[in-house]
Amino acid sequence: MKDTLTIISQRKSVRHFTGREVSDGQIEVLLRAAMAAPSAKNKQVWEFVVINERSLLDRLAALLPYARMLTQSPVAIVVCGDLSKHTGESALNWVSDCSAASENLLLAAESLGLGAVWTAAFPYADREAAVRQATCLPEHITPLAVIPVGYPAKAELVKDKWHPEKIHYNQW
Amino acid sequence: MKDTLTIISQRKSVRHFTGREVSDGQIEVLLRAAMAAPSAKNKQVWEFVVINERSLLDRLAALLPYARMLTQSPVAIVVCGDLSKHTGESALNWVSDCSAASENLLLAAESLGLGAVWTAAFPYADREAAVRQATCLPEHITPLAVIPVGYPAKAELVKDKWHPEKIHYNQW
Repeated sequence: MKDTLTIISQRKSVRHFTGREVSDGQIEVLLRAAMAAPSAKNKQVWEFVVINERSLLDRLAALLPYARMLTQSPVAIVVCGDLSKHTGESALNWVSDCSAASENLLLAAESLGLGAVWTAAFPYADREAAVRQATCLPEHITPLAVIPVGYPAKAELVKDKWHPEKIHYNQW
Repeated sequence: MKDTLTIISQRKSVRHFTGREVSDGQIEVLLRAAMAAPSAKNKQVWEFVVINERSLLDRLAALLPYARMLTQSPVAIVVCGDLSKHTGESALNWVSDCSAASENLLLAAESLGLGAVWTAAFPYADREAAVRQATCLPEHITPLAVIPVGYPAKAELVKDKWHPEKIHYNQW
């Protein structure tokens, strides 16, 4: 298997999938990686909805403007936050925690030779509402991202995003 | 080097450091990993402040209630977002993007045998203000996290956070 730094640098958004199924064991690996993320006060506010019904994948593809590839992917994972666990000034911690979990999930997919792409539900009220309704989320659960997963249909380019001008020292 | 799934599962918060220096090359590896994260519309809104002056590390340790370990770490990286790049409904995308970058940085540290810990600036107004002032951040730049980095002083336990009850299928 490839080392972590290579996987991090090679991870890319995959938006085209073959019809090949993703196994339950692979999904578990992705979810174990997601749940290994750090979280504020270790509250682990994430929840996950695994979507593997073709009709529901297609319905979400129709509802979400940037997730059309759900018509091709055999499965998608919706990363959600439980908003009841942080209140007041801490409320938005769920975004950081679920984002770290989502990134772990994407890296795990890359390391398994799968393709995936982070499509945003948060912070778009209409997309959040669409996902909430389609997956019957309770009131206190909010979707952050819908992540289609499958086998890549083609080689995807890795973007070079190294910009040393973004690095500052001590006092900006 | 260890494979990605192992590194993801073994990453832990390291809060005690030896005095051993972290090299510029290692810091570059961490920042390359951070900048390889995905970002909304590929806007890469992250910016990084590397803090390696002892007086500034100590000053931040005094200002931040959960970052006392900055007195031990030889370096810290402040992960910031450029708030001018997403406006209106998209504004909070910076949190997701910078969180994914932070997680990449933590995984890269683990893979190099370094220790690190995500200490939150966002969403706490007082901590954001303290970091902003200490590092002279411009108005449009907001700190998400202050991440001390160093060599771990002792073996740290890895938390088991696998909770299959957090997995739902299709419709919650």
